[in-house]
Amino acid sequence: MESAIPRHLQCPRTLQRRVDDGYTPPFPAWTARPSRPGQTIVMALLGVQACGAHAERDACAGLRQIVAGLHAHGAPLHCDVAHQVDECGYVTMIAITYWRDVAAYDAWAGRPDIDAWWRAPARLTDGVGWFREVLAPAEQRYETLFSAPDRLEAGGAALGRLSQEIMEHGYWGSMRDRLPLSQTDPLSASGALTIIDGAPGPGARVRVAGHANLAVIRSGQDWSDTAGEERRLYCDNIAPVLRAGMDFLRDAGTSVGCYANRYMQQRDVAGRPVEKTFGLSYWHSLTELERWAESHATHVAIFGTFMQVVQELNFALRLRLYHEVAVLTSGQQRYEYVNCHARSGILNGLPRES
Amino acid sequence: MESAIPRHLQCPRTLQRRVDDGYTPPFPAWTARPSRPGQTIVMALLGVQACGAHAERDACAGLRQIVAGLHAHGAPLHCDVAHQVDECGYVTMIAITYWRDVAAYDAWAGRPDIDAWWRAPARLTDGVGWFREVLAPAEQRYETLFSAPDRLEAGGAALGRLSQEIMEHGYWGSMRDRLPLSQTDPLSASGALTIIDGAPGPGARVRVAGHANLAVIRSGQDWSDTAGEERRLYCDNIAPVLRAGMDFLRDAGTSVGCYANRYMQQRDVAGRPVEKTFGLSYWHSLTELERWAESHATHVAIFGTFMQVVQELNFALRLRLYHEVAVLTSGQQRYEYVNCHARSGILNGLPRES
Repeated sequence: MESAIPRHLQCPRTLQRRVDDGYTPPFPAWTARPSRPGQTIVMALLGVQACGAHAERDACAGLRQIVAGLHAHGAPLHCDVAHQVDECGYVTMIAITYWRDVAAYDAWAGRPDIDAWWRAPARLTDGVGWFREVLAPAEQRYETLFSAPDRLEAGGAALGRLSQEIMEHGYWGSMRDRLPLSQTDPLSASGALTIIDGAPGPGARVRVAGHANLAVIRSGQDWSDTAGEERRLYCDNIAPVLRAGMDFLRDAGTSVGCYANRYMQQRDVAGRPVEKTFGLSYWHSLTELERWAESHATHVAIFGTFMQVVQELNFALRLRLYHEVAVLTSGQQRYEYVNCHARSGILNGLPRES
Repeated sequence: MESAIPRHLQCPRTLQRRVDDGYTPPFPAWTARPSRPGQTIVMALLGVQACGAHAERDACAGLRQIVAGLHAHGAPLHCDVAHQVDECGYVTMIAITYWRDVAAYDAWAGRPDIDAWWRAPARLTDGVGWFREVLAPAEQRYETLFSAPDRLEAGGAALGRLSQEIMEHGYWGSMRDRLPLSQTDPLSASGALTIIDGAPGPGARVRVAGHANLAVIRSGQDWSDTAGEERRLYCDNIAPVLRAGMDFLRDAGTSVGCYANRYMQQRDVAGRPVEKTFGLSYWHSLTELERWAESHATHVAIFGTFMQVVQELNFALRLRLYHEVAVLTSGQQRYEYVNCHARSGILNGLPRES
């Protein structure tokens, strides 16, 4: 067993971990490690949204454009495609791409054809909305967790390697304890989301600045290998509770510090749904994410149901869970929306006019 | 709103609280305060156990003897009477008495008639078992929590006053954060339960020494004022899950650091059951109590169900919950069992011969 915090980032603590050195987790879990020491991850969400009678078709066509641009020029380390219908009824499709570093992402986004396409006035009149959300956490500000050692997902798939069993999981507060910077920094949020230029809404382009210590979580479920009783427990007991929690965050999240939440189902390369979902949410602070997770009935119910199933199945789960969490400086976030409705993504968290 | 830690016990922290100063609990709660500043609490469990065809009658008769001894000489500050059938099938009745300090308890227990009765060889041949478990936490090692401000219970009833709404509740880890000593001390357990003299089991008398930072919790439920939907939710949804959790601790608690658990129903002065229950459990350490509460399916289910009911009822609960927690030095604990079966109370936590 090893610490989730890689050795080269361990330092004398000024803030304590919630568990002492004698702690043994009640079940195993793993974290992703970079294949190259010190490697970071850039997570770029390249999305399209569409409404109306042909929303699915239009969003799929938009996504194909995005993916074609990726394939043409040096693919990212890892890419997931996911689908959702958002709270305003817009079909949203996103290529969630992971890059080695900001330079790699910028090299792609700055290619003349990609850049010209993105900047073109025609993007405001395509009949769909486009957006990019780019997150580039320093190594000290990023953590991952996997319930099974045999399949890496998301940023973990980009990092490429798996740790030994880790210690910091299975208790509330372990998410914070896995973040290297939490050894010495309370990760308190400050500032607010602000518009850099432009305006939200259809027919317009807007760039938004994030603030210090904004938190992002992608928390995923893969039930493709479940069968029998476990599959029934997942589909009948866990998934509906999970959806209720995700819907709450989507519809009323701002009341608890959640700017935006997308609960999405993944698609394969042919566009067919696969048995993988994830919630991806933006939070004012890690603290508010912790508070929601610990006290809101929907999340506690998810956790309680999961623990019950885990224990009923004597920890022999085929359900795979993972998450990745980033707590970002303001300079590690970029958000741009083109012809999107005014509540798209992080726009939902902008201060409302009273 | 105020801190659960009384002002005169607040000191510069070397260990952090889990929440920062900006934290606002999701619902209100209160803690008990002493009527006289600096007053401590001694909790003395004076019990009897009986088995066989007339176990109820014999246990009740035993309890009447105990209570008569209390009434005759300077009553405790507060006394609850509770009933249980333990894992070995013994009817157990306990007068849970609260005293101003060790001197007050000792003055009672040391009275010639009380002392002579307790020491008499006849206690080994009464046909019932007798026990005393006496806990005398320093003020820094004791905390209470109440979900409603209109009824004090247990040690709180002995202390006599209620705080303003407190800050440190509604998140995992708040129990620790309410203990004044946790500001500077991790409250790590050391040592083991040991026999001071005698031997466990029928026909024998045994005294057991506790170890450093053994933790005790009495966690109570009062549903006497519930009605309608709330009563149905409590009786049908919460109580059965609670019982499952209590049964687990009773039957398999040692696997998670719980030496013993009693889930008891209170009785009124006439011996009739009232709608109040509590779990009273002894733990190797506060840490293990935290770990069980946070990760064991039964407790997470209790918590999740409670949070759901609270939120469904928009926090207008008539169900009353409270608890008191003590983390004790070895000198603050005394355990003595007379003619009791070998798994009674904390005897259940003695190392087993292999």
